[in-house]
Amino acid sequence: MKILLCGYGSMNTRVAQLAKERNHEIVGVLLKNDKPTPFPTYTLENINQLPDADVLIDFSNPELSLPMLVSNINIPIVMATTGEKERLISSLHKKSEQSPVFYSANMSYGVHVLTEIIQYATPLLNNMDVELIERHHNKKVDAPSGTLIKILDAINKNRNVHPMYDRSKNKTERNQEEVGISVVRGGTIVGEHEVLFAGLDETIQIIHRAQSKDIFANGSIDVAEKLINKQNGFYTFSNL
Amino acid sequence: MKILLCGYGSMNTRVAQLAKERNHEIVGVLLKNDKPTPFPTYTLENINQLPDADVLIDFSNPELSLPMLVSNINIPIVMATTGEKERLISSLHKKSEQSPVFYSANMSYGVHVLTEIIQYATPLLNNMDVELIERHHNKKVDAPSGTLIKILDAINKNRNVHPMYDRSKNKTERNQEEVGISVVRGGTIVGEHEVLFAGLDETIQIIHRAQSKDIFANGSIDVAEKLINKQNGFYTFSNL
Amino acid sequence: MKILLCGYGSMNTRVAQLAKERNHEIVGVLLKNDKPTPFPTYTLENINQLPDADVLIDFSNPELSLPMLVSNINIPIVMATTGEKERLISSLHKKSEQSPVFYSANMSYGVHVLTEIIQYATPLLNNMDVELIERHHNKKVDAPSGTLIKILDAINKNRNVHPMYDRSKNKTERNQEEVGISVVRGGTIVGEHEVLFAGLDETIQIIHRAQSKDIFANGSIDVAEKLINKQNGFYTFSNL
Amino acid sequence: MKILLCGYGSMNTRVAQLAKERNHEIVGVLLKNDKPTPFPTYTLENINQLPDADVLIDFSNPELSLPMLVSNINIPIVMATTGEKERLISSLHKKSEQSPVFYSANMSYGVHVLTEIIQYATPLLNNMDVELIERHHNKKVDAPSGTLIKILDAINKNRNVHPMYDRSKNKTERNQEEVGISVVRGGTIVGEHEVLFAGLDETIQIIHRAQSKDIFANGSIDVAEKLINKQNGFYTFSNL
Repeated sequence: MKILLCGYGSMNTRVAQLAKERNHEIVGVLLKNDKPTPFPTYTLENINQLPDADVLIDFSNPELSLPMLVSNINIPIVMATTGEKERLISSLHKKSEQSPVFYSANMSYGVHVLTEIIQYATPLLNNMDVELIERHHNKKVDAPSGTLIKILDAINKNRNVHPMYDRSKNKTERNQEEVGISVVRGGTIVGEHEVLFAGLDETIQIIHRAQSKDIFANGSIDVAEKLINKQNGFYTFSNL
Repeated sequence: MKILLCGYGSMNTRVAQLAKERNHEIVGVLLKNDKPTPFPTYTLENINQLPDADVLIDFSNPELSLPMLVSNINIPIVMATTGEKERLISSLHKKSEQSPVFYSANMSYGVHVLTEIIQYATPLLNNMDVELIERHHNKKVDAPSGTLIKILDAINKNRNVHPMYDRSKNKTERNQEEVGISVVRGGTIVGEHEVLFAGLDETIQIIHRAQSKDIFANGSIDVAEKLINKQNGFYTFSNL
Repeated sequence: MKILLCGYGSMNTRVAQLAKERNHEIVGVLLKNDKPTPFPTYTLENINQLPDADVLIDFSNPELSLPMLVSNINIPIVMATTGEKERLISSLHKKSEQSPVFYSANMSYGVHVLTEIIQYATPLLNNMDVELIERHHNKKVDAPSGTLIKILDAINKNRNVHPMYDRSKNKTERNQEEVGISVVRGGTIVGEHEVLFAGLDETIQIIHRAQSKDIFANGSIDVAEKLINKQNGFYTFSNL
Repeated sequence: MKILLCGYGSMNTRVAQLAKERNHEIVGVLLKNDKPTPFPTYTLENINQLPDADVLIDFSNPELSLPMLVSNINIPIVMATTGEKERLISSLHKKSEQSPVFYSANMSYGVHVLTEIIQYATPLLNNMDVELIERHHNKKVDAPSGTLIKILDAINKNRNVHPMYDRSKNKTERNQEEVGISVVRGGTIVGEHEVLFAGLDETIQIIHRAQSKDIFANGSIDVAEKLINKQNGFYTFSNL
């Protein structure tokens, strides 16, 4: 495939490397502010001069993604930017009338399967308490992770639960609707998400562990390879 | 409910205790060899004198279970005896023409859900390797556990895999069809089963942990409570 | 041994059972308010009539323990009551002039070894971040557990750290002196404590898991068996 | 430092990259068979022409390491080659009369600390069973890992234990002197080692997890930085 990258931070740098190893070609990079990259670079000002490409992969930020989405770009788009979720999705829906677009807050297929498993398991385990624990490196600023929120949403489709972030404050017994959220930070942990179902004398744990950020980069390329054969429309892992 | 116990080893002793706490009544115990119990006891010789009961719970062994199943007993039966699986199931099928019967190699609902989750997840994770690890107390003689075999069967419904018990013998790379089986024994661990899916830079683990044998005793009473309202037939957790 | 129990809640009920299985004798129970027990019972009013005993095991509460400690009781004392820690320890120190006394906020030898291991490991792992996670049943009111605080104290002997209870509030990077405290509650989990050391591309986890409250009951009897052979003084697991 | 690399497989390729990031210089590579590398390369035939260097880092194999060790090379040596352990150590001892040499079967400081912790903990937990579980990627041929053997040796300093590789064969109860060895293989798992102590109603687990092979590459550079300031002699992590 001929790939356009939107953004060139650590994730798209890695996408470029892995795409090359998988025999794809990076034909250009779109940036908010010009800076040198190993590829022809473009900004919003000369966005009309972007080269032909089969697909665009966007790991950037809403300040770049939102204007890009209202431009004339008319190729399949893999959107991996987080933040401003509602505005992004709304713009993607408009764009999806002209081309196939894909959106996920987490490009790992494994994380997607994790949420599918959780959705399957939750109604079977209604008599058990649910707790969520995530672990990431010590540089991560947002807490809890976007993926944990995604898992919490998946549980909420089946149960009416609310998050509990700090039990040291109110010394009361756990209530059944609460889901304790634990946020662990340390070292260079790439990302671990655990869903604990705890019942009478037994527990079930479902744990996803990422060993390298490559799962997100490779995941976006996997998606791109499928998306370019799709009709116009809005895609997620559930309907790709 | 009025409950008949078949066998009075450690499991049915616990069933008796928990049944009482749950306001059920033990009306008699059927044994292979007479020995004192806190309840009226019967053997195969006076099996025709068994008192009226709503359900029979059998945690014994095939030497008692098989003759019991060909007797005139005509009430719902919860069969938790393991060993001689095929002969037991065959006898249960005959009995199921006269009364509802239930069979499971593991009376824990959590373990049942575990196998359901594994069956759901396996086809979604075809590109990952699968490995199984079980942990039990240091008195357990059989290895691997019956539950692990049940999980392996669940995986085999979706993939053609074969078990690998000892990698120290043949120094070759893992092949894709093999499922490593690890058997850990120590202390008084009640029972832990882990299914590990390992792929490219990510893993998914699904783990069931039993904290007390009560899950099996309570599980059999839960089943009994449902079974007494069923029509004649052969039941498992999947259709109860 | 002839054992006096101080308190007769769930823990000392279990001590009575296990002591009997270990061929010890319960000669009496001291209670704040009279209630029937299977043993001769006494209250603070007739505390002078307590029978002869080799040791007293106290799983009660400060309202009973503190008056007991200022009474004439003059036998080895195993103190497992928590709450009012400073007043209890002060009273125990006075009593230790007349008899050997033992105090621990956690009667499990395994938990004691856990804290020893943590103290040993912490200075070797100065370049790694430390995080603490504890898991208990859904009835537990205090958060975090006393044992987690004990572990935090053990770490603080080697590093100057401060606890962080809720990262969802302040969106900043982890700082090196913080130790994240995660409190998980669900089902009937007896108790699990994890210390996570997370460094550059590697982690070390040290985890203690209790499977039954018997470890605390048996632990107190183990201590009693040793304490009755000791000279007067104040003992903990470190010098017993 | 000026670094000579002995071998240029995946590990030393990574050492070269990380050394550069840490402002060291690779001055040459010694190979068994000539092949292009980004650095001046040498073979055993022109080993006398090696450039001046502060230290040699060897991640290769005994066929190269053993002849290198009997050559005139006279600089600090970090030996990370495994296989032919006894012959390597014997040659290193001879070389250590002329220069400081370091040997470890595992260059990760975290793994070293793990074995130290195990040695500290083992005598404190004499009443618990010990089991070992290791997990690695699906390309790993040797089983169990060298690091697991190292941990087993550490336990054997305090207890007389023997390894048990396959419990499915002999259906008997665990005996106290046996240490079950579990070998898990799957995906791209870099390396995980767990020591499980299992006792009466409680367990202690000590787990090391490597997230990237960089811990071995960086570990060898860390060692090199210390070794160049040492006197002639044979060093391991215990006396460095």
